Amino acid sequence: MQKPCVILVRPQMHENVGAAARAMMNCELTELRLVAPRDGWPDKSNNRAYATASNADIILDNVQIFETLEAATADLHFTFATTARVRFQARETFTPTAAAEATHKKLEAGQRVGLIFGPERTGLENTDLMLANAIISIPLNPEYASLNLAQAVLLVAWEFLRTADQTPPVQMPLATNIFPAPQKDVDFFLQRLTGELEPTGFFTSEDQKPNMLQNLSAMFKRANLTDQELRTLHGIVTAFKPPQS
Amino acid sequence: MQKPCVILVRPQMHENVGAAARAMMNCELTELRLVAPRDGWPDKSNNRAYATASNADIILDNVQIFETLEAATADLHFTFATTARVRFQARETFTPTAAAEATHKKLEAGQRVGLIFGPERTGLENTDLMLANAIISIPLNPEYASLNLAQAVLLVAWEFLRTADQTPPVQMPLATNIFPAPQKDVDFFLQRLTGELEPTGFFTSEDQKPNMLQNLSAMFKRANLTDQELRTLHGIVTAFKPPQS
Repeated sequence: MQKPCVILVRPQMHENVGAAARAMMNCELTELRLVAPRDGWPDKSNNRAYATASNADIILDNVQIFETLEAATADLHFTFATTARVRFQARETFTPTAAAEATHKKLEAGQRVGLIFGPERTGLENTDLMLANAIISIPLNPEYASLNLAQAVLLVAWEFLRTADQTPPVQMPLATNIFPAPQKDVDFFLQRLTGELEPTGFFTSEDQKPNMLQNLSAMFKRANLTDQELRTLHGIVTAFKPPQS
Repeated sequence: MQKPCVILVRPQMHENVGAAARAMMNCELTELRLVAPRDGWPDKSNNRAYATASNADIILDNVQIFETLEAATADLHFTFATTARVRFQARETFTPTAAAEATHKKLEAGQRVGLIFGPERTGLENTDLMLANAIISIPLNPEYASLNLAQAVLLVAWEFLRTADQTPPVQMPLATNIFPAPQKDVDFFLQRLTGELEPTGFFTSEDQKPNMLQNLSAMFKRANLTDQELRTLHGIVTAFKPPQS
């Protein structure tokens, strides 16, 4: 399935184009289009974009240059224009998350989608926004919303990657030596611990004992202990209460 | 309610500390702690961090410096350590989203939370990770996962802001001049358009007419037209079919 392309309109600094390419690569986007870059698009040997792209060269090698935003979006079926300021355009305004979800649906339906970003200082002009089908507005700190170009690309591209991502939100590492122990082993340790504590006077009264046992159990169960950790705990108990000879 | 603090462990370049502060400010985080910055922490007048902080100076003015990560986390109740590489630590590993959601819950319960980031080149050492309660791993392009420090801070802080954010995922701008027209006005336009098209031969057959009307209706309804846009459309029809005198 195709990915959305990123369109940078009138970018000023080649360094920023390179940093944007790096952010794209982080998030598995590869197609970059430039509209009228201020300083043109020099050869690779003389192009500062490569200095900041941090090995995302393949994106820069395949960059497409257009004179106008119309030309850059001509083959696309849907475009989102990113803007920091909310403006009264009769366009639907999406959060980056909602835009990413809508983009996945359009791509699945075979549409080609473009993500449009404006020049560093000024952002997109109204005439640029008019060419987009919808707006992306990033809900940042309202008193401090300015992102540099590469960061704006990173956040929008990240939302695209994140909303496609199948990584479990929380996971335990699965190396065999840190696999959680079966609960019977945890229970056996708790029994041993209880038995060893019994003669020490730890359980101050029979009334309190069930409550104290419950607390001990909660603590060790919650830790989701591994085999190795249980062995360590047994070792601690043994160190305090050596087997009587 | 308190926000999480950001802890940068052994940062190398002051410029990167400044850029991280800017990313924090974008996402409404304000408390920054540094552990053993490589080049110390010079006075404001001589500190390159301020050059890249882009007016997030207040964060840098209030930065706290610690000699060790233990000291920097001593007053916190829960810490997440961010790492690019997955390592076999017996720690739960969270996506940035899941970590953000867990952080909100802990903050609501009155806990203080820290987000720990390692030095630019090497990331956190295992001895640093041992001090954290859980790990954040950012699921980027597995073949191109390297983020610079400020971008890593931006993504983790963005997830914190995003998951607290109440911005509607999609919205229409609400200026009065672009409020959607009442549907009766849209229907009136459709009737007028149909009436004007009738004598032109547009409706090629009576059989096809209901279908064609449905298509016209779908198109103009889907556009969720404003009053102004309806006036424009009426103007177009009038331009083609001037009222007969």
